Order: sequence, then C-alpha cells, then structure tokens
Amino acid sequence: MNLPDIIANDLEAIRSRKPLIHSITNLVVMNETANAILCLGALPVMAHAKEEVEEMVGWAGALVLNVGTLEPDWIEAMEMAGKRANERGIPVILDPVGAGATRFRTESCKRLMESVKVSIVRGNAAEVATLAGLSAEIRGVESMSAADGAGMIAGEFASKTGITAAITGAVDVVCDGKRTALISNGHAMMGKVVGTGCISNTIVGSFAAVNDDPFLAAVGGLTTFGIAGETAAKAAPEKPGTFHVELYNALYAVRPADIRANAKVEIQGL
Amino acid sequence: MNLPDIIANDLEAIRSRKPLIHSITNLVVMNETANAILCLGALPVMAHAKEEVEEMVGWAGALVLNVGTLEPDWIEAMEMAGKRANERGIPVILDPVGAGATRFRTESCKRLMESVKVSIVRGNAAEVATLAGLSAEIRGVESMSAADGAGMIAGEFASKTGITAAITGAVDVVCDGKRTALISNGHAMMGKVVGTGCISNTIVGSFAAVNDDPFLAAVGGLTTFGIAGETAAKAAPEKPGTFHVELYNALYAVRPADIRANAKVEIQGL
Amino acid sequence: MNLPDIIANDLEAIRSRKPLIHSITNLVVMNETANAILCLGALPVMAHAKEEVEEMVGWAGALVLNVGTLEPDWIEAMEMAGKRANERGIPVILDPVGAGATRFRTESCKRLMESVKVSIVRGNAAEVATLAGLSAEIRGVESMSAADGAGMIAGEFASKTGITAAITGAVDVVCDGKRTALISNGHAMMGKVVGTGCISNTIVGSFAAVNDDPFLAAVGGLTTFGIAGETAAKAAPEKPGTFHVELYNALYAVRPADIRANAKVEIQGL
Repeated sequence: MNLPDIIANDLEAIRSRKPLIHSITNLVVMNETANAILCLGALPVMAHAKEEVEEMVGWAGALVLNVGTLEPDWIEAMEMAGKRANERGIPVILDPVGAGATRFRTESCKRLMESVKVSIVRGNAAEVATLAGLSAEIRGVESMSAADGAGMIAGEFASKTGITAAITGAVDVVCDGKRTALISNGHAMMGKVVGTGCISNTIVGSFAAVNDDPFLAAVGGLTTFGIAGETAAKAAPEKPGTFHVELYNALYAVRPADIRANAKVEIQGL
Repeated sequence: MNLPDIIANDLEAIRSRKPLIHSITNLVVMNETANAILCLGALPVMAHAKEEVEEMVGWAGALVLNVGTLEPDWIEAMEMAGKRANERGIPVILDPVGAGATRFRTESCKRLMESVKVSIVRGNAAEVATLAGLSAEIRGVESMSAADGAGMIAGEFASKTGITAAITGAVDVVCDGKRTALISNGHAMMGKVVGTGCISNTIVGSFAAVNDDPFLAAVGGLTTFGIAGETAAKAAPEKPGTFHVELYNALYAVRPADIRANAKVEIQGL
Repeated sequence: MNLPDIIANDLEAIRSRKPLIHSITNLVVMNETANAILCLGALPVMAHAKEEVEEMVGWAGALVLNVGTLEPDWIEAMEMAGKRANERGIPVILDPVGAGATRFRTESCKRLMESVKVSIVRGNAAEVATLAGLSAEIRGVESMSAADGAGMIAGEFASKTGITAAITGAVDVVCDGKRTALISNGHAMMGKVVGTGCISNTIVGSFAAVNDDPFLAAVGGLTTFGIAGETAAKAAPEKPGTFHVELYNALYAVRPADIRANAKVEIQGL
C-alpha cells in the first residue's frame, strides 16, 4: 500500500471508530482543538484535574499533551495521565509550545519525556531543537534552507530520544530516526491563526489512535491537516477570520479521495 | 396562554430585562457560552474565584454551573455561589458534563445537588441516567427509542430528586415529575460543534431568569435554541465552522414570531 | 506630523517590528485576544505561571493585564510580571474588567496599580470611575452626555493616578491629565461580541510597544480598532457571529491609508 492510501485508510478508520482523544492542553486553544478533533471525525475530551485524569485516559485512544499556559499542577496531571496511557499502550503526543522561551517550559517538557514514554513530539524547529539540546548550535541552522534545517533537527531529536519528531513549517518534516518525510501540503494562512500548531498536534493524535506506527501517524495527520489548510485558503484568501472558520469546514469535508489526489509527501529511507 | 406564547413572551422578557447570567463553567466553552448569552439578549459574566463568587451572584438573575474541566477549588466555588443563589431565590442550573465518565465528575455533581437547591439539570441521556442511579440498568434503555429512553430517564431523575430534568438529543425531553415535554426542534449539525450542550444550558438559564417555573424555562430555552439551530443549519448545511458562526447570528435574530411559528413541542400531563 | 499620520506610522511599525505582546488575561477571551494581536501584526503570547512570567516578559514589547476571571495566584503572577516589565521599561496596560462589581476585582486592580507602574488603564466608564474613587458620585454622571461623563471620569482618574485613562464607549475618551482625545470611530456591533473591550486593550498594548507616549498609543489603538469595527460592521450588519469573524479580517486588512482617511479623533489640550 502506498503512503496516500495508508493516510486515506487511517482517515476512514478515524471516522468509523471515532476514538476519544484526551487533551490536556493550554487555555488559549481548548475550544479550537476540540472542534478540530470533532470535525475530523474523532471525539474530543478535555480533563486536567489530578482527581480524574487517570480514569479519563482509560476511555481514550490517544493522549495529547500541550505545555502552553502551563502550571505546576498541570504538569503533574500530565505525568499521571501519561503513565496511565503508557500502561494502556495508547500513544502520547507532546506539543512543546514555547520550549526554549522559558526554563519552566523547557524543563517541563524534559520532565514529561523522562517520566512518560512519548510517541511523537510535534513542534516548530526552535522548540524541537531546544529539546534535542541544539540550542547552542541553532544559529547555524539559519543558514540552511528551512527544510534542511528542520530535517537536521528532527533527525538529531529522533536519534537522541527515540521519539518521532514532527516539525511543522513551510515544509513539514517527520523523522523517526530511520525514515524521514517531507510534507509540502499546507498554506501560509495557517500561520495567521493562533493555535494551528496545537490543532495539528491533535490531528496527529487522532491518526495515532488508529495507526500504531508513530511515523505514519504523524505523516498522516500533518498531510491531512495541510490539505485542509489548502482548501480553507482557497475559500478565504487573505482573510484570517474567515480562514479560521473554513479550516473547520475543510477538516469536516476532507475525503480519502482528496488525500489520494493531493498528498505531497516525499519519503527518504522507507 | 399556550406554550409557544409563553416562550415568546419569555424571550421578550429576556431582551427587555437583560438579566445577568453568572456562569461557572468549563474552560472549553467560556467564550462560546458567553457569546450565546449575549446574542440571546441577556448579559454574561464569568467568575469562579472563591473570593468573589458570592458577591458576583448577588447581581445575577440565574446561576449556571457546568462541571466540565472541573478542579476541586472550582467545586467549592460552585457550592458557595449556589448557596448564595438559593438565599437570593434565583435559579441554579447544572450541566453534569461527563457525569459517569469519571467518579470525580459524578461525585461532584451529586455533592452539588446535595448542598445546593438546583432547579434544572440539563445533560445528555447518559449523564442524567448516571445521576438518577440508573447506570446499572442503562443497557436496557438502548433497546427503546431514543425519546422513550430519555423520557424514562428524565422521569426517574425528576421523581427521585425533585429537580427538573432536561435531556437533549435528537428529541429533547423535559420532565419535572408531573409534566413531560418532547421538543422536536433542533438539527443534527448542533452535534458537530463542541459546546452546543453547554450553550443550551445557558439559554435555559436565561429563560429561568425570567420564568419562575423551571419546567417552562427549560422547555422555552431548548425550543428557542433548537429553532436557532434550524435557522443556522439552513444557512450552513454540512459546514460545522460556518454553522457555529451562524448559530450566534440565529440566536441574535430569533424573534417571538419565529417561536410561535416554529415551536414543535408536545406536552404530556399539563 | 498630524495625529492620523502618527497612528498610521505606528501601525506600520507594529507590522515591521512584530513586538511580542505578553498577556495575562481572563479565561473567556484568551483565544480571541491572541488572534486579534496576530491579525494586527504583532505576536501574542499567554503565560501566567509564577514560574515563568518574569522570564517570558523578558521577550515582550508590552505587558497586558486583565482581571476578568481572576484568582489570587494570577494577581501575584501579574505583579511579578509587572515589576519585571517596569525594570525593562516596557509598557504595562491594565484592563480592570468588572472593577466595582466585586471587592476582589476592585482591590486587585488597586493593588496592581500600587505595586506596578501602569502606563494605561483601558476600561468602561464605570470601571474607571471606580478606580478613580468616583463611585459615590457616579449617579451624577448619568445626567451628562456619555462622552462628557467619560471625559470627566478619565480626567479625574488621570490626574489622581498619573496613569493614562482610556474609556471606551459610543465615543472613546483618552486622557493623560494634560491632553484629552475623543474618538468617534467604532460601531455599535462591537458591543454584541464578548471580549471586544479586552481586544481593544491588546490593540492598545500593541501600539504602546512601538510608541513611548501612552496617550498616543491609546489613541492609536482605539482609533485603529474602531476603524476595523466599522469595516466589519459593513460586511456583517446585524449578525454578531459573522461580525466577530469579520473583525479579525478587518484588523488584518486595515492599512495606514485607511487610518489617514477614516480617523475621527478630536484632541483637546495638545
């Protein structure tokens, strides 16, 4: 089966199985990520109290963690939920929002990656570079093309941690240490709406709930979200408010045939 | 006065009196529920700190509690606000989001119903069944039609607790132990947007602020919201993002004459 | 340089320098204010943990504080962030949401204004009157025209505190104790969407990040936001859901030439 067929099949699986995606995420994007999950065809739930996260994760097909607007109690809840997810064998996806911007965020991400088996980290190049310990060398990255830089960072992160890296940007890069994918779907308007990075993480989480291979799940999620972004941008050129609305419409409307027709993924090492 | 006239009059009363609706609600739907209240014609306020909830509820025409994304401090604040609402004689509406999914949510709802005089509980069939102690028998419900099942659950809940039950679904059911209403307004697209259940609760709360009869308030709120949903679905078929936007437009635009023309409510026992 | 030119230049400066606007704000408007900042051309970040606010404010061009949905821990974080902002010499803008409605909110605002050097307070007339100690005399204000009343309140607040007052309403009033501006831009539909006051505060904060004069920053922010509101209202008359979406489109689309053509600002004492 070729890659677009795998992604298309996973999209169908999400819609028929409707996995529950448990998010412990930041206060800025709660509604938006929940609506994106629902539009895609999975079911969202948000719960962050230590009194209930372990029980809630018991119903989930994937756990999505996001460290934007973090507080200490929330990290503890993320650890508890993550450990329970590991016991159950469901995937844990981490969005290291702002890693590198403050020590609290960087250290919270590292703590989570140490105490919980994380399947996929999805972030921007600077965030993933910080977690790969590349902050000192990061200046050099700027002289590479964006995709080459992201590829280097994703490779370094994956080989050091054993966690699949998914770096979003003009070209998205996914690397699990052996395979690397370059995804050219998406649109610049996605950078004009707050939380599209966080949303991409939940789409990846939804794919991970139906595909045991984190590399394929990350590629499937980012490709599907990128295609939805292209559709939304056609409906709302240069209008970020309308684009935001159209993004939900597009996630709801995207069909397996759209994936097969429009996926722009290049794989190295498969 | 017939029922559609009562609802239409209550809608006019909301718009002329503009009651303040104090919500202590979940982090996912704060903006959305506040905007729905404002579009309907009431005034929203959100406040959850123990330092101020009692004082804030002093200005309110109704108190709306919602246990999604609960934390222990928030339950205490809900209890404090609820007791003050009881002292003032204003209605308390409870949305038991996720009751049955975790013990923390189930027990928090029960604690609230014990320590506070709640006027209306608005939830889905599974949530209200849990609070009615019907979880063991819930399987049997699945063999009934959805409306018959919800009717049985609502009746059981209302007779056990003395609280008006409002169960939303394809057909909404309201029961206060004596009277039962079946509301056929609404649209399937309402299930494609996160938080429409929570929004329905705040609309019910707005009606309860102007109508002392919890049964009539629940019927009025759900009928009005269902009619708004039908209007929005006509404007945005199969587009959940656009539908979400149109729902606010429809709540703002709905007129007493629309209620009289479009209400589909069947009453038993009136 | 005349005032519309100053505002137009500041708008260009925001878009070329892209200052980071650090908000510690209420739970109802986090997504909406972040998107407004991004649409205008600045960069939003939200962080409220005491563990990171001081470090985060180190990256910022302005700090925006908002006391809606306040908790004690958040006030402490606001104080820490505010003191660090003062050390760095970046402006602090305060939105006293609900001052006067509860003692907790009133006292929290006063505490912040005592421990932190605030550049601008942007609120409605009742909130600013409360902080100016005018609550006893506030009834008399009602017999004045709205703009005259707001002008009196803004003047009193500014002369007592040395902080620039920006009062939004049908006519916005800005006063720094010496100069007073009356801004007639804006549209009544802005009152039909929750959080437009909070958004106006972040727009003012974005202007303050590029203009050292708090009076000019407040006038620039409110004029620009008012013009965006007028554009959005043309696109979505009497439709608050659609208007909300169009407001982001308008903030993104507003050009310096639109400011020069449409600013309706009258200055006294310049």
